[in-house]
Amino acid sequence: MEVASFPIIRIAAICGSLRQGSFNRGLISSALDLSKQVVSGMEIEYVEICPLPMLNTDLEGPGDSFPDAIDAFHQKIREADAVLFASLEYNYSVSAPLKNALDWASRTPNCWGGKAAAIVSAGGGFGGGRSHYHLRQIGVYLDLHFINKPEFFLNAFAPPAKFDSNGNLIDAEATEKLKDVLLSLRSHALRLKGS
Amino acid sequence: MEVASFPIIRIAAICGSLRQGSFNRGLISSALDLSKQVVSGMEIEYVEICPLPMLNTDLEGPGDSFPDAIDAFHQKIREADAVLFASLEYNYSVSAPLKNALDWASRTPNCWGGKAAAIVSAGGGFGGGRSHYHLRQIGVYLDLHFINKPEFFLNAFAPPAKFDSNGNLIDAEATEKLKDVLLSLRSHALRLKGS
Amino acid sequence: MEVASFPIIRIAAICGSLRQGSFNRGLISSALDLSKQVVSGMEIEYVEICPLPMLNTDLEGPGDSFPDAIDAFHQKIREADAVLFASLEYNYSVSAPLKNALDWASRTPNCWGGKAAAIVSAGGGFGGGRSHYHLRQIGVYLDLHFINKPEFFLNAFAPPAKFDSNGNLIDAEATEKLKDVLLSLRSHALRLKGS
Amino acid sequence: MEVASFPIIRIAAICGSLRQGSFNRGLISSALDLSKQVVSGMEIEYVEICPLPMLNTDLEGPGDSFPDAIDAFHQKIREADAVLFASLEYNYSVSAPLKNALDWASRTPNCWGGKAAAIVSAGGGFGGGRSHYHLRQIGVYLDLHFINKPEFFLNAFAPPAKFDSNGNLIDAEATEKLKDVLLSLRSHALRLKGS
Repeated sequence: MEVASFPIIRIAAICGSLRQGSFNRGLISSALDLSKQVVSGMEIEYVEICPLPMLNTDLEGPGDSFPDAIDAFHQKIREADAVLFASLEYNYSVSAPLKNALDWASRTPNCWGGKAAAIVSAGGGFGGGRSHYHLRQIGVYLDLHFINKPEFFLNAFAPPAKFDSNGNLIDAEATEKLKDVLLSLRSHALRLKGS
Repeated sequence: MEVASFPIIRIAAICGSLRQGSFNRGLISSALDLSKQVVSGMEIEYVEICPLPMLNTDLEGPGDSFPDAIDAFHQKIREADAVLFASLEYNYSVSAPLKNALDWASRTPNCWGGKAAAIVSAGGGFGGGRSHYHLRQIGVYLDLHFINKPEFFLNAFAPPAKFDSNGNLIDAEATEKLKDVLLSLRSHALRLKGS
Repeated sequence: MEVASFPIIRIAAICGSLRQGSFNRGLISSALDLSKQVVSGMEIEYVEICPLPMLNTDLEGPGDSFPDAIDAFHQKIREADAVLFASLEYNYSVSAPLKNALDWASRTPNCWGGKAAAIVSAGGGFGGGRSHYHLRQIGVYLDLHFINKPEFFLNAFAPPAKFDSNGNLIDAEATEKLKDVLLSLRSHALRLKGS
Repeated sequence: MEVASFPIIRIAAICGSLRQGSFNRGLISSALDLSKQVVSGMEIEYVEICPLPMLNTDLEGPGDSFPDAIDAFHQKIREADAVLFASLEYNYSVSAPLKNALDWASRTPNCWGGKAAAIVSAGGGFGGGRSHYHLRQIGVYLDLHFINKPEFFLNAFAPPAKFDSNGNLIDAEATEKLKDVLLSLRSHALRLKGS
């Protein structure tokens, strides 16, 4: 394992699916493993979006006060230097739970601003690809700076099997590409921080 | 009021915002009024999406059974000939509650297939316009057939006031355009039904 | 071959690539063959976009007069009931020659308005898919009514070979899907015409 | 005028319209003026795309040799640190001449890779805004890094007049925002260069 001679990048990892057996959650597990064993200089924290209520700004109290689950989520995003999205494609766009999380942390003030970001996805067909371009447009307003390359879309249903029965990524080529995503995200985050 | 010589079109109206004072909800109220007083041949029913839980396919029971709120929503969408979306733009895309409703009624089987649809929106800047194009892409998979013209985006914050303090649309030009949307949606629904 | 008991649909077919050996041109050849042998009730005419100059509205003369190549193109589009686009994806969007043709026939008046349309594409990766969604957004303004299903993207580089050395489609599954696109386009055009 | 204590950023400015009287060309003129008088640390060069032939890879010779006009364009883009696009919206997307220029300079090798970029536009309605999001998606493949803020869309037809009869920007608010775009582009280019 290489030794980091630059600041440790803190990455918040968010999964667009609430399902236990989600392949997209599996991608985050693999990214966590890679950050501990292969890619130095980053700490990935999985941030659960399940506790967030459906966005309704009527839930906000006076003086921009929020329900506790929202406050905790805001805190996690603010502390991160960069964000890794595992973006389930659902009906040709991002999933509702992911959009909900994106929206909550844009209020108030916007917690996403200026951070580096990357998207990974697994699914049928384009492997979740259509959701990436919607997420990137959302990111313009949120002021996220996505890496351009590599893009990571994994067709999870084309043989051979890409995940084992526990939802762990077992495909060597995809694992290598996931590593490249993390390296690219680390570089981009460092550049944006001016380090 | 003209007399309809063609079948009555049943329209499900859905608002992307859960807020009580939402301008987008105001657009649906105005559409309801127009359908009762000015535009014949349609029945608009406001379908509330507030009771829907956040999408999690783990909530589905065996044999595609669903929680009651989902079943009721499915029923409303299936009965409609056409759909009128009041689409709040949030962070340059559709709102999470709207995406959630779209996703739930795509399971299973897809309740949206083959229906005519139209989008109206009110907001700042482009008046919600960016959300339209994301919704249209979602509609490709859901097999919705949107009208192309007129498009309805209303900048709700540019003077003069477009809504009164109860959230009712009071702008004459916008009301006229909303009427044109309903007429176009009615024609499109009739064409798609082969009537 | 079935016998048509409804009006013959005239389809203008346009290829987004100017290259002689283009796979997308091959898709149009195959569609032409299908329309002569398998799918009744349609006449497909290949409309070449090569002669069109780059869009520059300074080229337009007084009284909306146009260079001859533009006039001829306008005429072809006006005569068609429906349009079949073979859309090369180039840098994640439609090709410049296709955009140029779309723009020229929108001037003046718009020749595309109200027509049914379908998109097919061949390429690497998503098989040209990203270009479809840009073309569909362009179609909102042009007032094109695209079929939703089936969508046709062909990964032309994944084995086995999809085209022979003359650029003809030789893949049975893709040919079947192309036939389904034509049937869907025919139905949609008939519905929009009220036939 | 402030004194630059950092490297001079070289910016290639490209206009998506070929029309002489184009408002988008006017935006580039104003950016040039600002770079000479108000915003230090940048040199903007207007790069004409008019001489480029319509993209047809059959025009490429052996060993990736190109027609002279293409070679010259490649050279200009390669020398730039950043790109300023004045993007005419045409039929809800980028113009054909701009797409053509983007495509030519992606061949071969890609001249755009890793550069900072910004988009400005003037037009009716959303002021060209829809073209931005298509251009940003194109930029993912080209590996352009767009600034997120401020976004610059100018409704050129809403009173009061935004341009004088020579096509020069005369609106103070828009000029201030254009300046902010240049400052943001300069910062982003410096960050990406690691300066």
